[in-house]
Amino acid sequence: MSTSADAAGRSPRAPERGMDPRAARSRAAALAAAQELLVEQGWAAVTHVAVAARSGVGRTTLYRHWPDSPSLIYEAIAQRIASARPARTGKLRDDLIAQLNGLRALLHDPVGERGMRVVIERAGVDPAFAELKESLYQAGSGGFRVIIERAKESGELPGGLDTELAIDQLAGPLMFHRLLAERTFGAEYVHSVVDAFLAANLPRRKG
Amino acid sequence: MSTSADAAGRSPRAPERGMDPRAARSRAAALAAAQELLVEQGWAAVTHVAVAARSGVGRTTLYRHWPDSPSLIYEAIAQRIASARPARTGKLRDDLIAQLNGLRALLHDPVGERGMRVVIERAGVDPAFAELKESLYQAGSGGFRVIIERAKESGELPGGLDTELAIDQLAGPLMFHRLLAERTFGAEYVHSVVDAFLAANLPRRKG
Repeated sequence: MSTSADAAGRSPRAPERGMDPRAARSRAAALAAAQELLVEQGWAAVTHVAVAARSGVGRTTLYRHWPDSPSLIYEAIAQRIASARPARTGKLRDDLIAQLNGLRALLHDPVGERGMRVVIERAGVDPAFAELKESLYQAGSGGFRVIIERAKESGELPGGLDTELAIDQLAGPLMFHRLLAERTFGAEYVHSVVDAFLAANLPRRKG
Repeated sequence: MSTSADAAGRSPRAPERGMDPRAARSRAAALAAAQELLVEQGWAAVTHVAVAARSGVGRTTLYRHWPDSPSLIYEAIAQRIASARPARTGKLRDDLIAQLNGLRALLHDPVGERGMRVVIERAGVDPAFAELKESLYQAGSGGFRVIIERAKESGELPGGLDTELAIDQLAGPLMFHRLLAERTFGAEYVHSVVDAFLAANLPRRKG
């Protein structure tokens, strides 16, 4: 699928280079309609017929951009959850908080939240979504991986720390809180998760 | 929906009281077929037509038990992820490990894992699934809540500890590791999660 680059970091809503403005407008209108349907009724409602009816874009045009329904849903999600890359300060706590705030923003954006739910479900039964989920997971976890590995090298975190477990401990609580407990949360919640992680993992200093 | 009692703890596969054996067999065969379809192809494939074809149970019988497709999927999931209630020892670490091992088992059972993914996705767009997810969340988190509240009362955990955050910190990593990172894990992983939680939260002793 050619759109996976989106999930790997292309800025959202960027029209394809060289696309004529009318085609770019149709494409944007179609994706916006697909996102609305996704949020309102779930992925099964995102069909070419329904997107054409809501966006006013002809079905022939839709089929030219997206030959099947999964590719349309895929791009509607990927466009919105293209991962933000927060600037790094080199301070462990600040960088972890900035990275987790990206996940917080995603989980509180209607399309982002629904997109996460859809990829979690569809990944097991549809290879295109498995690819999207993997690409999102790599983009999302990659930021944490860089921060944690650097802190291990500098001695801020213990060299023996399991980086994958650390990512689970940072991102897992946010996912659980939003997608299972169905609660919203603010910046203080993110601070609590990071501080608990640091309390468990900072090297103990004697005396 | 009358089946939510399943999720609240009724033992799985128990036939309804007073149901004649032939009806109970049909019901069990239909639910097994629904579970297979769910694992192989996702919830959208669990239709009365497909379940009848696979189980050999007549469609009229299926409609009598489950008037619509969501109620059939609901029970296929609820039957398998009825929460186990591990015996408690009164020892904080052991009880947290036992409770998390129940979630680990669920996430490594094919129907349980798929069921979790389905309720996470469907809960936002179908009230029946929102109810199922809520009932599963309450049953699952309820065990942690009892253990943590008791440890707060006894002073083993700080009285000011946020119980909901604690549940997120315990269950969240497992969910993330299995449903996002798509990795399996064993008992040692559960121990690491519990020990990190305790390291972050046990009251510091002076001296």
